[in-house]
Amino acid sequence: MSDRVLIFDTTLRDGEQSPGATMSHDEKLEIASLLDEMGVDIIEAGFPIASEGDFAAVNEIAKAAKSATICGLARANYEDIDRCWDAIKCAKSPRIHTFIGTSPLHRQIPNLTMDEMAERIHDTVTRARNLCDNVQWSPMDATRTEWDYLCRVIEIAIKAGATTINIPDTVGYTAPRESANLIRGLIERVPGADEVVFATHCHNDLGMATANSLAAVEAGARQIECTINGLGERAGNTALEEVVMAMKTRHDILPFDTEIDTSKIMHISRRVAAVSGFAVQPNKAVVGRNAFAHESGIHQDGMLKNPQNFEIMRPEDVGLSATSLVMGKHSGRAALRSKLADLGFDLGDNQLKDVFVRFKELADRKKEVFDDDLVALTRDSGADPAEEHLKVKFLRVVCGTQAPQSADITLTIDGVDQQATAQGDGPVDATFNAVKELYPHKAKLQLYQVHAVTEGTDAQATVTVRMEEDGILATGESADTDTVVASAKAYVAALNRLRTRREKLGGKEVREVSYKDAG
Amino acid sequence: MSDRVLIFDTTLRDGEQSPGATMSHDEKLEIASLLDEMGVDIIEAGFPIASEGDFAAVNEIAKAAKSATICGLARANYEDIDRCWDAIKCAKSPRIHTFIGTSPLHRQIPNLTMDEMAERIHDTVTRARNLCDNVQWSPMDATRTEWDYLCRVIEIAIKAGATTINIPDTVGYTAPRESANLIRGLIERVPGADEVVFATHCHNDLGMATANSLAAVEAGARQIECTINGLGERAGNTALEEVVMAMKTRHDILPFDTEIDTSKIMHISRRVAAVSGFAVQPNKAVVGRNAFAHESGIHQDGMLKNPQNFEIMRPEDVGLSATSLVMGKHSGRAALRSKLADLGFDLGDNQLKDVFVRFKELADRKKEVFDDDLVALTRDSGADPAEEHLKVKFLRVVCGTQAPQSADITLTIDGVDQQATAQGDGPVDATFNAVKELYPHKAKLQLYQVHAVTEGTDAQATVTVRMEEDGILATGESADTDTVVASAKAYVAALNRLRTRREKLGGKEVREVSYKDAG
Repeated sequence: MSDRVLIFDTTLRDGEQSPGATMSHDEKLEIASLLDEMGVDIIEAGFPIASEGDFAAVNEIAKAAKSATICGLARANYEDIDRCWDAIKCAKSPRIHTFIGTSPLHRQIPNLTMDEMAERIHDTVTRARNLCDNVQWSPMDATRTEWDYLCRVIEIAIKAGATTINIPDTVGYTAPRESANLIRGLIERVPGADEVVFATHCHNDLGMATANSLAAVEAGARQIECTINGLGERAGNTALEEVVMAMKTRHDILPFDTEIDTSKIMHISRRVAAVSGFAVQPNKAVVGRNAFAHESGIHQDGMLKNPQNFEIMRPEDVGLSATSLVMGKHSGRAALRSKLADLGFDLGDNQLKDVFVRFKELADRKKEVFDDDLVALTRDSGADPAEEHLKVKFLRVVCGTQAPQSADITLTIDGVDQQATAQGDGPVDATFNAVKELYPHKAKLQLYQVHAVTEGTDAQATVTVRMEEDGILATGESADTDTVVASAKAYVAALNRLRTRREKLGGKEVREVSYKDAG
Repeated sequence: MSDRVLIFDTTLRDGEQSPGATMSHDEKLEIASLLDEMGVDIIEAGFPIASEGDFAAVNEIAKAAKSATICGLARANYEDIDRCWDAIKCAKSPRIHTFIGTSPLHRQIPNLTMDEMAERIHDTVTRARNLCDNVQWSPMDATRTEWDYLCRVIEIAIKAGATTINIPDTVGYTAPRESANLIRGLIERVPGADEVVFATHCHNDLGMATANSLAAVEAGARQIECTINGLGERAGNTALEEVVMAMKTRHDILPFDTEIDTSKIMHISRRVAAVSGFAVQPNKAVVGRNAFAHESGIHQDGMLKNPQNFEIMRPEDVGLSATSLVMGKHSGRAALRSKLADLGFDLGDNQLKDVFVRFKELADRKKEVFDDDLVALTRDSGADPAEEHLKVKFLRVVCGTQAPQSADITLTIDGVDQQATAQGDGPVDATFNAVKELYPHKAKLQLYQVHAVTEGTDAQATVTVRMEEDGILATGESADTDTVVASAKAYVAALNRLRTRREKLGGKEVREVSYKDAG
């Protein structure tokens, strides 16, 4: 058996499905491109039948993919499977992933007998295979399915043409020895098992997803399904960065290889945290702010003498530059460009110019400009000038213990300056009300989030604003040392994107069905 | 072998040691009391020789403990051990925990030969045992120590009187099968192993701390060392909530028992997150905001028909009330008291009165008042009136795109109203400058953090401010729908506590030595 383990990333499907983590169209394309570049073997791009928006995202990702296989999800019916194929068939390497819940609890939902379900599996996998050479089949809630029945339906799926059999621990219920025993048992018992790849798909409800995935690989699985930052419903999925770094760091006892360029881990982790609005905790393995001893400011004897005393991975291995070089007001444009390249940003000349101006402004106000400050500045300049119908020209907010708070704002709307004053409950509320007065809209605020970029009261804060109108989503981000200013800019950025997106789409992006509604 | 597994919590030692997670004296006492109440068997309260402050905290925790054993840490020298004993001997059940790094890398630091180190271990464990009947010994970095040498030194420690042998995976390097093999091998090979308790102490660098701890228990360990929220250096320690809930949920394959009252998990998790300043990510197992399906707003068919379809633990099991009852402006004082009791707060009449007034104010401004809003309100009222030298009477801040921002504040200082105006970089900076003008101080801002309590722009934000002066730490928290107001109140609360604490102590709390400086 080969030692190569395929990495199947489902950040855009199982991760994005997590309540509150919904990503916009453009964000999905950006994350897919980063996954492709980092060497993920299979990207599960979405659930095409869920909505027009999902279909469009999967379809564009399929078109753009350079080397990754692009996979779409489909329930066990022809309509889902056909729609999935329509979305992905333009990919260089497409895969259809179809599933049905096989455990006693899940069998009750479509109300099928064991025999009827077996027949449905045969029919749907056959349909998928007639469309696509690369078909993955999953018995949802496999770890709570009777083993005999599991063997029976897997055999049917293999005979019908499935090329990958995925074993989901849908509710995060298993433990490493059990996970290994299940995979080993299936490979031994199911006829034809040696002709397909077995995959493991774990959830982290009991904190063991990483260990369960690796135990499955030791027992013969050769595909790990995972997400960046362990994003996903409830406690999330197996974290890509953990399984990949565990196999790399403990190659002596886990002698398996992937094609992941681990130096891209930190950048994609930060981007997924930003666009999903799901922050990574400081003590998260591999990608947490404190994950590396040298980053956490430990300077005790042992660490200084030999980093290996307390560090089993090198920060460079995951794309953290060895020193968090502090840029100051005397740093030039070349230094900024080289620093941004280290951080994974390859900016065009115009964008660099813009970031440089704002870097100088920031350096005047802030003693030290850290890596994270630069990342925030760079993100902020992501706005496409063509999208800037609205721009914040001036803002003055009066707030404090005596209500109401008020905001006085001047917006440049399609080239014309307009001014308004509004009140609200708190400075941010007042500011948003003032914007709404000048630019009336029906968009609903879905997410408002403030992240402190660095420490201290003069630190920059990044504000993320997500708006929704008629099912179309748009996210704006902005960073400033004044949270109220960052909020206004992020709100306006989201409104700009919403307008562009609405003009482009003309259609609806409403999520109409849930993938769990497997029928 | 008994199926009872001892839970050893080191949130206050290994957790608190995490850079940025330093807790104040009062916070340590509060967390210790919560750990004691929830049924933790052994509380590692700190490292007494590290500083006067550490000694005082361990000592007061030892005096206050009701049922937990109180443990203090000591390096492998007589001075540490004697100081540790002085701190804990007043406990009903004291334990000395002494350690030395035994791996090749760590042996270089004190520059001892294998024989010299063996002798040191014999001498120091003997010293500890002469003082205390309950002695725990740890070979730091055990998982990277030669097994033969490990057997040899463990045998020496047992002969010298150690009653618990802890096997630390200091750098988070091991994996479940290796972890189990090590514990099983040691128990089989070391003479006297059957007379002591073996403990497992894992770090989460590769994301496997929970699985490694449970594998060690399956192999014969009967004590798990862990922290609330997995707090700890780098990627943190094993999370208490994960190992406890795994043994409870999968008792069929992990048939081990603890005395933990799991319904207290959520409350202590929130308190540790607040006082450490280490937020828990939404997709954290067991204690993340999204950990339970019903909490994440999933309302698909399957979940409605039967929660077990996607939920293996009940929210009530960890102390989340089944419904997040929304309180409104018509809710009375009795409803508030009962709701707060559900959330784990038992307030005195005066405190309840205060919270009730602020609850009504909030309900006027905010459509729905959620559990988290109430928790924030309640925390905010924790100030002891005797500590209120300073009080924010009025605040008015002008901020926006045009610098400088300015703050106009009136503080009541020891009963007298005083007014000042100051400028700064951003509204918070200006506000803090104004406070400093009225109440000059040399305290340094160690931490400034904003958490959004609930969603939306009218949401409450909780601001945490930690100040340090001459080694004395004080934390202030405040919640308000206006971040700037919350910041002012939190800053003033921290200054009040700093003053009280300085008057009480008169001493220094400077951390002078690192526990890793094992000499």
